This record gives sequence, structure tokens and C-alpha cells, in this order.
Amino acid sequence: MDSKQQILTKSNEAKEIFLPNLSADPVIFGFENNGLKVLMLQMNYRQKWLLPGGYVRKDENLDDAVVRILKDRAGITDAYLEEFGVFGKLKRSEFYFEDFDETLFHKQRFISIGYLALYNPSNTTLVKDELSDACEWIYLDKLDEIDIAMDHREIIEKALLTLREKISIKPIGYNLLPEKFTLSELQKLYEVILGKELNRGNFYRKIKNLGILKKLDEQRRGGAHKSPDLYTFDEENYAKALENGLNNW
Amino acid sequence: MDSKQQILTKSNEAKEIFLPNLSADPVIFGFENNGLKVLMLQMNYRQKWLLPGGYVRKDENLDDAVVRILKDRAGITDAYLEEFGVFGKLKRSEFYFEDFDETLFHKQRFISIGYLALYNPSNTTLVKDELSDACEWIYLDKLDEIDIAMDHREIIEKALLTLREKISIKPIGYNLLPEKFTLSELQKLYEVILGKELNRGNFYRKIKNLGILKKLDEQRRGGAHKSPDLYTFDEENYAKALENGLNNW
Repeated sequence: MDSKQQILTKSNEAKEIFLPNLSADPVIFGFENNGLKVLMLQMNYRQKWLLPGGYVRKDENLDDAVVRILKDRAGITDAYLEEFGVFGKLKRSEFYFEDFDETLFHKQRFISIGYLALYNPSNTTLVKDELSDACEWIYLDKLDEIDIAMDHREIIEKALLTLREKISIKPIGYNLLPEKFTLSELQKLYEVILGKELNRGNFYRKIKNLGILKKLDEQRRGGAHKSPDLYTFDEENYAKALENGLNNW
Repeated sequence: MDSKQQILTKSNEAKEIFLPNLSADPVIFGFENNGLKVLMLQMNYRQKWLLPGGYVRKDENLDDAVVRILKDRAGITDAYLEEFGVFGKLKRSEFYFEDFDETLFHKQRFISIGYLALYNPSNTTLVKDELSDACEWIYLDKLDEIDIAMDHREIIEKALLTLREKISIKPIGYNLLPEKFTLSELQKLYEVILGKELNRGNFYRKIKNLGILKKLDEQRRGGAHKSPDLYTFDEENYAKALENGLNNW
């Protein structure tokens, strides 16, 4: 079955089970080799790249829908997803399916709910679905090299801005870093999210003041320099900071 | 025409012009007499209180829909609305219309997009629509005394939590306070949003450090104490802080 026929078959089934006009798009950020990545699918129809999004069943809660979608399309089952934005402009998605007539489920107007999650890529093996040729982590600075469909680049940018705001009021790193990490790795994560370099002394002082780190009696061996100390997150204090926020006032 | 008949008539028209399953609910906060208020409508059908929400036209952008809805239902034309949350649980709104059969437009499942705005109540005269008996500012600490329908109390609470997070990363007050205000009035605004008392010395020092205030050569007269200085916002610096955020890092 070619990819166009496959979409036609899905369309009839979709009309039965999904709400019209509404979709959900998860933006999953990962951190590896000092760079931020985002999870993308390459659809076999037209070979363009998209977020691993989908539709909402008539009989399911919206929050359950996005969890199901991420599992079905990428094999990820344990990401903590938060709504961050709604994309509701006219004609934002219809054009992608221009080869089809107006009766196609996928070609109607969709308002899409954006969800954000931070995820450590090494925690899972990605599993692509039958509609996709690839399911991959793409570094943010490589997004320009792939052909992204609809307004999904705009959705990723809004997610990154949200993350940048969040970093001032919530601790970040628990779902992105390995269990043991150096302060310099944590600083790098903050720098890629904020999009700017930070002064090392200030960063170390501020991050330690949050009380979310535990220094381990272990060092990272093998570098050219003095072996740096390893840290881990203090789970209890991290959870508290997440709940109460890092309030300035 | 009684209120039930009025809804039946609206239902047929609604099916023609609005997207199914999708609504928008604006949460408009005002600040007066040192207290936060929220804009609520009392529907003539069943006399319950609701946010001034509505539906999205098939031919309009989502952002335009919420502006139109707020104008039509409350007469407010100049609020700056920001999306803050999506409310998509099954059975969140259907029960309100239990007197009607399943063909009613209003009784289908709705996923609602919450929008937040800060607004100075003295800037406008509220104008209620034909579906409502009242359109009023209700103080947050009086919400327990009115009968709020659906999950609209939960929507208001989420909006307040969002505002509480925002206050750490964005300046707040420009749309809520009169042009000239005292530092103690501004402190009170921060206190009601944060839900806690702040140390006066710390607050004055931090708020002045943001560089968003201009001290006027004028005092507030008439109190029992020493006449306090009046301030106004420095519009340019305020706009800059709004755009760049009050980043901690």
C-alpha cells in the first residue's frame, strides 16, 4: 500500500474515533553532547519532517491523548508532558494534504495543542510508527537542514521560549542529565536553553544556593584537566523547588 | 422568549458558524481597593456564574475569536489576552445543559482554551450580552459566595497560578494600576497575586532595581501618615523588561 492510499484508509477510521478540528503536538527536548535535540518524525507521505503529533479520541481526556500519541508514534512512555501553547491560525495545516480532496479527515482545519517535555534520549529506544520513515532526535542547530512541514518549526520555537522562561522559576535538568553530572555539564545545559554564555562563578554560586544538588564523593576521570567533582540531584529538594517555584519575591 | 428557548434558537445558528468541540474562556483579572477581582457573567439560563467564554468561528483565527468573544460578552475591547491553559477533561461542560437533548450545540463535548488578561476595571463600563443577567467584577475572596458552573473555578485557579509564576519573570502592574500609584499600592498588588505578605524594605529595593519605575515630584495627600511619594511606570523600560523577562541567570 503506498503512502497516499494508507492515509485514505486512515481517514475513514479517524472520522469514527477522533474529535474533528483538534490535534496535539508534543515537543520533546533531549540533551546530549552539550546540545539540545528535539524529537521529529519523517513521514513516508511526502518525506517531510513533523513533530510526533496526533488526534484526540472522542472518548478520552486531552491529557491522556497526548500520552497515547507519543507512545504510538515514538515508543516513549514515561515523559512528563506539559501544555505550553495553542496554535489556532487558519490554514496552518490544511495545505500539507493538498493532494487529497476535502473529505479527507486530515485536511480539515486543525487547532493544535502544544505539549512540552524534557527527556533523556538514552532512556529509550525510539520506535517509529507505520506512517513514518524515521523517528529521530535532531539537534536544534540542524533543524535548518531538514524540510519541516506546516507550522511545526514555529511550535518548536515557542516551546524553546517557554523553556527559557521556565528556567527562571523552576529547576531544570532532572529529566535531561544522567544521574551523575559535573557542574560544568549542568552549566552547559542552562547555556543552551538560555542561548547565551554564563559566568562560571555566578552560575556555580546561584545553582548551589538553590539547594537542589548533592555533591558526590566521586570525580569525573579522564579529562585533560583536574578531575571535576560529580553531583546528583537531591530528589526531595528538587521536587520541592519544582512545586514551589524559585520565587524572586 | 424564555432562556431555554433562547438557547435552542442559538444552537441552530451555532452549528452553522462555529467549530464543534472547541471553546475559549477569558479570565480577566482586575485590581481595586487592594483586592484582585475576576470578570464573571451570570447567565439568565439557570442563573449560574461563568467566565465570559464562547466559541470559535470556522473562518477566524483562534486569537481573533477570544478578542471577539470578550467584546461581545462584556464590552471589553482593549485587553491583552494570553493563552495560559487548556481544559480538556471528558464531561467538563456537558452537564450544565442537562435539560436539553443531545442535538444541542452547547451540550457536545468542549475542550476549552483559557486566556488570561490583566485589566484596570475603571477603564471601561461593562456591557452584558443578551444571554446574561449580569456582567460583574467579583473579588477573588467572594467567589465562594456565587454559584459557579462547570469547571470555571478550576480555570480561574489555574490562571491565578500562572500569574503567580509570571510575576517572577515579567513586570506586572501596568494594566492593573492607575497611572500614578504609591509603592505600597504596588506592593499590595504583588502580595495579593503571590498570596503572601512581603517585607517592605526588600520589596522596595527589588522593585526599584528592576528600573521600571519613575518617581514623580508628587505625593498622595490625605492619609493619616506622612504623604507617600507617587510613582509611574517608565514605559520604555517596562516594555523592555516585558520582552526580555527578569532573568535570574
